[in-house]
Amino acid sequence: MPSSACLERTIAKAIDAHVSADTPPRLVAAIRHAVFPGGARVRPRLCMAVARACDGDDPELVAAAAAAIELLHCASLVHDDLPCFDDAALRRGHPSVHRAFGERLAILAGDALIVLAFQTIAQAGGHSPRRVAPLLAVVAAGAGLPAGMAAGQAWECEPQVALREYHRAKTGALFAAATQAGALASGVGPAPWKPLGDRLGEAYQVADDIRDACGSAQWLGKPAHRDAALGRPTIAAEIGLADAMPLFDRLMAEAQRAVPPGRCADALRELIRDETERLIPRALADELLLSAA
Amino acid sequence: MPSSACLERTIAKAIDAHVSADTPPRLVAAIRHAVFPGGARVRPRLCMAVARACDGDDPELVAAAAAAIELLHCASLVHDDLPCFDDAALRRGHPSVHRAFGERLAILAGDALIVLAFQTIAQAGGHSPRRVAPLLAVVAAGAGLPAGMAAGQAWECEPQVALREYHRAKTGALFAAATQAGALASGVGPAPWKPLGDRLGEAYQVADDIRDACGSAQWLGKPAHRDAALGRPTIAAEIGLADAMPLFDRLMAEAQRAVPPGRCADALRELIRDETERLIPRALADELLLSAA
Repeated sequence: MPSSACLERTIAKAIDAHVSADTPPRLVAAIRHAVFPGGARVRPRLCMAVARACDGDDPELVAAAAAAIELLHCASLVHDDLPCFDDAALRRGHPSVHRAFGERLAILAGDALIVLAFQTIAQAGGHSPRRVAPLLAVVAAGAGLPAGMAAGQAWECEPQVALREYHRAKTGALFAAATQAGALASGVGPAPWKPLGDRLGEAYQVADDIRDACGSAQWLGKPAHRDAALGRPTIAAEIGLADAMPLFDRLMAEAQRAVPPGRCADALRELIRDETERLIPRALADELLLSAA
Repeated sequence: MPSSACLERTIAKAIDAHVSADTPPRLVAAIRHAVFPGGARVRPRLCMAVARACDGDDPELVAAAAAAIELLHCASLVHDDLPCFDDAALRRGHPSVHRAFGERLAILAGDALIVLAFQTIAQAGGHSPRRVAPLLAVVAAGAGLPAGMAAGQAWECEPQVALREYHRAKTGALFAAATQAGALASGVGPAPWKPLGDRLGEAYQVADDIRDACGSAQWLGKPAHRDAALGRPTIAAEIGLADAMPLFDRLMAEAQRAVPPGRCADALRELIRDETERLIPRALADELLLSAA
């Protein structure tokens, strides 16, 4: 598993490599504010763990793919926090980008981060030029059309939403992009790695719904109870918290089983176990199950 | 010169190729509204004209590069029109995207269009995989960091702005990307083609300032006199309309001279002549010069 400091350096380098004396300083500050300090960095860690399992021969391209996925994730958070969406004042315990820099710089920082994700992959393609286009396509599908993050968010603007498609696009797509990108950047076919990303993405969204319904702003680093306040469809609202907890456990178990066999399968399963505990600490899970009994 | 109908089909195909039954229908409608009917499509036409002059061997990649540049341009218009920027109700004679679909879908359509630009290039890279990364880097630099469109727009959020850097990033960068992309997609070194894009971009911004100061909403297809209303730095405000007209003429003449010699140089110079007349019709130019005399 790459060290957390190494991952932070990789992401910081992706920004530094595309900033110059001609870049407006407040835009640079807004971009850095959007990306640091980070959250759990689960998507890039997942991408790098898959690459390790695939025994990749191009660590530079793997690091670029991981950074690109995190930059896209950060871009989506900046835009999701805007007044016309979640109107969130806090993110990761700090003021959201539009609160700190204004709405215009928040929109532009998000736009620049999306472009930067693809620039980062392009710049690292030197050793494996034939991998660039398929890697780009997989990462882009996690973010845009036909059913990536932007599409997921756009389901909130439709009169009718199927909860599963909504979640699969809003959250699952970038997890599936992370596992597939880890394989592709390593020169390995991505298909066997998609189910792992799909299951983790689904589990992550269920956890997010549970955390929003049960958590406090202090624990989450952002406002709690926003789904209910914004009238958004959630798993917790659809099937109830009591059934959401076992669903989360089941999805995480399915993710464990979706890890393809190989040298580093154990390390990947450990990552999934750590995430399970980080997302919904056992104490909270027990409390939820007890109160529902 | 590719026919205008052919270019429209290329851009439409880029969207269709990335829409599926899983894409939210209103997002797709907002994206199509942002892209059709188009404006003059000057950037993709320029890209394709340069490719023709370079005698390119990969028309599919050229078409993808041209479409990508137009998609990025459309994305920037959608975000620029938002209430926190220009708050424009009209674009190309129709309601702006946020007026027609709401602010949330306008932000998401812009995001999805940025991603789509890179997806379009990735998808067309099959015949010339080694060209994908450099082509992507050049196109991205026109849109994002360090000094592309998003950076140009962000200069409006700085306390101090140098007009030339502001315009070079806001408008010039995507023109320079268009000429360089036309060369790169054709397997030709991009450097000799940059000055042509730089000059055209600069001339285009001067024309835009003149048109905004002199034009009517009916002629422009969008509100006039917005620069003054928004207190934005413009050439017309800085040096006056009387001096802006000869500057535009001079930049267009420099663009003519910046066309590298070759088989299709005449066709490119004709494109520049047509653009000169389209941007500032001779009658308006004469009137301006006369009233300033």
